[in-house]
Amino acid sequence: MLKQPIRIGLVQHSCSTDRAANLTASMDGIRQAAAAGAQLVLLQELHVSLYFCQTEDTQCFDLAEPIPGPTSQQLAALAQQLKIVIVASLFEKRATGLYHNTAVVFETDGSLAGMYRKMHIPDDPAYYEKFYFTPGDLGFHPIATSVGKLGVLVCWDQWFPEAARLMTLAGADLLLYPTAIGWDDADSAAEKHRQCDAWITVQRGHAIANGIPVLACNRTGFEANPVTPNQGIHFWGNSFVCGPQGEMLAQATQAKSEVLLCDIDMQRVEQVRRIWPYLRDRRIDAYPDLLLRYRDGKKT
Amino acid sequence: MLKQPIRIGLVQHSCSTDRAANLTASMDGIRQAAAAGAQLVLLQELHVSLYFCQTEDTQCFDLAEPIPGPTSQQLAALAQQLKIVIVASLFEKRATGLYHNTAVVFETDGSLAGMYRKMHIPDDPAYYEKFYFTPGDLGFHPIATSVGKLGVLVCWDQWFPEAARLMTLAGADLLLYPTAIGWDDADSAAEKHRQCDAWITVQRGHAIANGIPVLACNRTGFEANPVTPNQGIHFWGNSFVCGPQGEMLAQATQAKSEVLLCDIDMQRVEQVRRIWPYLRDRRIDAYPDLLLRYRDGKKT
Repeated sequence: MLKQPIRIGLVQHSCSTDRAANLTASMDGIRQAAAAGAQLVLLQELHVSLYFCQTEDTQCFDLAEPIPGPTSQQLAALAQQLKIVIVASLFEKRATGLYHNTAVVFETDGSLAGMYRKMHIPDDPAYYEKFYFTPGDLGFHPIATSVGKLGVLVCWDQWFPEAARLMTLAGADLLLYPTAIGWDDADSAAEKHRQCDAWITVQRGHAIANGIPVLACNRTGFEANPVTPNQGIHFWGNSFVCGPQGEMLAQATQAKSEVLLCDIDMQRVEQVRRIWPYLRDRRIDAYPDLLLRYRDGKKT
Repeated sequence: MLKQPIRIGLVQHSCSTDRAANLTASMDGIRQAAAAGAQLVLLQELHVSLYFCQTEDTQCFDLAEPIPGPTSQQLAALAQQLKIVIVASLFEKRATGLYHNTAVVFETDGSLAGMYRKMHIPDDPAYYEKFYFTPGDLGFHPIATSVGKLGVLVCWDQWFPEAARLMTLAGADLLLYPTAIGWDDADSAAEKHRQCDAWITVQRGHAIANGIPVLACNRTGFEANPVTPNQGIHFWGNSFVCGPQGEMLAQATQAKSEVLLCDIDMQRVEQVRRIWPYLRDRRIDAYPDLLLRYRDGKKT
């Protein structure tokens, strides 16, 4: 049985080229959350560096590090010191020429509870991730911790209902998404609004469809494109926590670094799944085509 | 190539024990939508009767009819007369002792373009559908019409991302949900708000995750429980149309019968799927466990 309620913290901050300062921002946020009673802290995607995927530059592979490695060891020590669970996001060097976008989970004793390698890799202008990250090969498996089974996913995964469902079917208690997403200045205000609202909505949809709380931690601040520095990404913050009916429990602002705290009542999951028992009614006999790229030539 | 934009109409109305009056309400709404230029009209779930599933009563099987049958023939004739596509919802008698909750699609010439038998069947207090409806056996296949390939699903299906995904993978241009859902008076105002908001949000989530417009037509009005008539369901209306980013395009009120009109720009789908190409990045190699009821005993 999980402790009730779970107090969680999300650390949303801006980043710079100063790697030490970025890690300090993350760690200061973790300490602040722990001081406020958080048992679990979620960091944003690739929180120790700029979002370097705006261009394809082989120099950026210097940012990667092994796991365990310098950054993971500092975070592990902090988890042990504060006796909390930390979910962090690292640019993993697995081997020379083999890199992943990897989330790591540290237990309250500083041990590595588990890791998740980002399975769905985006690639569109200013998000050239297919150049940097090999698609994950660990599958969709929750990571067991003292605060529950954590369905850790990363950013682009948040648009895929399949990932949320697979984590739920494997017994995840929470879904957690370290994220780095923002606006292109070239887009209209209306398009920007639609994008951020869609990002929140699709994740609330996962919460509803699976009867599971969702935590999303996004970065904030403007990061210039190294090639065309008058362009760049305005990361839209808006880190949030919603409950198992998709109800918004806590939400950060757009433009500010902040530590978002929230208490999650896990009894709500029990109640909600009793009235909305989707897992009972899934038509698994009729789902085989979910394993196809596209249902070409099928009867319509 | 589809006509641009598609003007669609949703007919949301209350029902009574007067079957002829219910059908008249549906048909008047269709005529009103067609007069306003609608090329496609979506009706609510089981629109020619009360929502009879509040109790389990064998007498209610008298409400079922074969397809083709009296109601479908009237709707087919109206489609031909108005030269529009109609998506209706019928209690289908397939054989003695074999009934379905079935959506039917009539082409502009009055022919039956296709039908869909509700695949996911709910059963919870006041929604005893497993007693009445055999789960559908036609699978998830869009129905080809002159206004596009229609991904017709029914009510409880709207909570299942799998159904929306399978329709999209089979080339659906739109998702359409005839619906009958409402509030239990015993629930708090906060719970009622969460439920209706979740209903809208999960469907907007399907739109976003698949880059596809979604139409949901729900009934309105209070229907007393035949056994305990001081209780019943307040159907929450709120029929709506959203675009491929989940952006709300049109929304009906909660308590009023109305015809909701909306123009859908299908070029938006092309644009949205170019910037958010989820179909490109699905990890079908890692999805086999979606075919399991639960991932018991799997590695976590």
